[in-house]
Amino acid sequence: MSQLFSYQHLLEFSKAVFLKIGCSEKDAALATNVLLSADMRGVDSHGIARLSGYVRLWEAKRVNAKPEIKILHQTPSTATVDGDSGLGLVVAPKAMQIAIDKAKNVGTGWVSVQNSNHFGIAGYHAMMALEHNMIGICMTNASPLVAPTFSIERLLGTNPICVAVPAGNQPPFVADLATTTAANGKLEILQRKSIEAPSGWIQDKDGKPSTNPHELKVGGALLPLGGDKEHGSHKGYALGAVVDIFSAILSGANYGPWVPPFPAYVAMPTDMPGKGIGHFFGAMRIDAFRPAEEFKHHMDNWIERFRSAKTIEGFEKVIIPGDPEREMEAERKLGGIPLMKAVVDDLHQLEEKFEIEFKIHSE
Amino acid sequence: MSQLFSYQHLLEFSKAVFLKIGCSEKDAALATNVLLSADMRGVDSHGIARLSGYVRLWEAKRVNAKPEIKILHQTPSTATVDGDSGLGLVVAPKAMQIAIDKAKNVGTGWVSVQNSNHFGIAGYHAMMALEHNMIGICMTNASPLVAPTFSIERLLGTNPICVAVPAGNQPPFVADLATTTAANGKLEILQRKSIEAPSGWIQDKDGKPSTNPHELKVGGALLPLGGDKEHGSHKGYALGAVVDIFSAILSGANYGPWVPPFPAYVAMPTDMPGKGIGHFFGAMRIDAFRPAEEFKHHMDNWIERFRSAKTIEGFEKVIIPGDPEREMEAERKLGGIPLMKAVVDDLHQLEEKFEIEFKIHSE
Repeated sequence: MSQLFSYQHLLEFSKAVFLKIGCSEKDAALATNVLLSADMRGVDSHGIARLSGYVRLWEAKRVNAKPEIKILHQTPSTATVDGDSGLGLVVAPKAMQIAIDKAKNVGTGWVSVQNSNHFGIAGYHAMMALEHNMIGICMTNASPLVAPTFSIERLLGTNPICVAVPAGNQPPFVADLATTTAANGKLEILQRKSIEAPSGWIQDKDGKPSTNPHELKVGGALLPLGGDKEHGSHKGYALGAVVDIFSAILSGANYGPWVPPFPAYVAMPTDMPGKGIGHFFGAMRIDAFRPAEEFKHHMDNWIERFRSAKTIEGFEKVIIPGDPEREMEAERKLGGIPLMKAVVDDLHQLEEKFEIEFKIHSE
Repeated sequence: MSQLFSYQHLLEFSKAVFLKIGCSEKDAALATNVLLSADMRGVDSHGIARLSGYVRLWEAKRVNAKPEIKILHQTPSTATVDGDSGLGLVVAPKAMQIAIDKAKNVGTGWVSVQNSNHFGIAGYHAMMALEHNMIGICMTNASPLVAPTFSIERLLGTNPICVAVPAGNQPPFVADLATTTAANGKLEILQRKSIEAPSGWIQDKDGKPSTNPHELKVGGALLPLGGDKEHGSHKGYALGAVVDIFSAILSGANYGPWVPPFPAYVAMPTDMPGKGIGHFFGAMRIDAFRPAEEFKHHMDNWIERFRSAKTIEGFEKVIIPGDPEREMEAERKLGGIPLMKAVVDDLHQLEEKFEIEFKIHSE
């Protein structure tokens, strides 16, 4: 039920759309690069499937295609950035670059961002640090879908954290995780197939455990990593809260239940305490701690030891964070990117709306 | 089955023991302060119950009572510290102070520590930042008890993360969490009472789910937060791995399965790649991002919104990270600290060993 597209084909199409909504040539290329990195790494929920969603946010005047991204305040190792309602796909890599530049000067750089929008996958931004021999850190808050332990209210987003660490001969370590039992994208897959969700992923509107994948449409909520108190959901809730605080209370963005929803048709919250959504970025120069070659030697040793650990019968190997996404990227580079029919239909509508010559249906 | 002791009583006793093993007056007071903060906050597994364990590490010549704590390398925002095999209870607050001092100068400070020992509760060190209007971050690696997802080998410690955030009228937000489903201390409580553990906490030597609280003695392992792959254990594993990397691969400490065990009678691993155990500390000045008063106003708003969230029937309120420990501290300040008989017996043995006048049995 899916169709294969080459990276180049989707790149040209996506860039054309971003140009049509008024992005500069450079920003359209950057936004496309970030967006498609999700498709390449197998995080289909955050890739070109969201392109029409970004366009609808622009139509609702919630996305500014020509943002003036400004530093509001800074110290040698920190900055607070105003994204000027730009696409998060554009604001985030620019803010991460500021963190990297500060790390070059004083060892580390930390940037909190207000007034932004959904930024695609966290991994892209954190991984920008790798080529500079730095550890990259990235987090963002998001539309409230998650109930804190003991609550029936959705007060947190899936608030992901990504940490990217360079290695030597081994590929980098890239942990990219929503602070929930399961990312919303995983639930969406079950919804499309109408398959029951495992216990511990969601609760119904009264806070009772549920396996109905459609529960969020009728007042249910995603659960913090851990699932319930007995299994540590207060820890997942605490981690999601830390992401919210670093991304939004440090920067002046909206937080908790006031984070603007991604779907443009959902009404904005009232009495919003900040501007847009918030992100947080960090870069730490390895040689601000020890020589990079020494660090990489030990990082290789760490990865090799974990990858070769004895497994439970039936499992081939222990996975190093970042392995599955990198393997998917290699596969899709050769074989192309599969898109589901609903996504192809969506792109076709964009093609008609913007009268783009490029035929998305030609393959 | 437990006896009550006043804070002052335990303080004098603990300080006397640290003096007997050769700590300076100042270090004995500091170590005691850190140690007892665990008892006060209700983290009994990390308090005075461990005093005899520290003494045994000193007897095994694994703890140096007169460490020369040195900065090995630094930049304006970072430092790598050699703990000189000191008590973690002494090394950690000194390293955290370096992070705070750097944050005063350039906005943030980040310190990775090698050649240290068990540092008590993470909360104590992270909370040092609060009075400076800073966010405090603290993590440490620990003896390997945790199996990565799909493995039967114990390759990670319970590797806790603590984040302490100042508020205004509200008490601070303090998230202090092991990156496992349940901290080892919780399992120890079940062991003493021979109560079955909930599913998702532990696995047996073959990697099968187990509820036997004694499983770790026969090759079993604690599980990363999430419990199993379907419930996100790869996220708990990734978080524990990040703690290991920041604490030990940045600093030059031991990592993964090579972290020295806390019990002095357990043989040291062979081919150790670093020195001692590792910690990582961070301090971020609030006003390096925005005025502290503005931040605190929004932090209060965040806390009030979450604390007053609608609850699931049967639950009184949503808990803000740090609430339970603070309430316990208020209670124990008035009512004293209860110690189990096994702990009292342990302290009595220390009393005899060191010929300390102070009568631990006098109450």
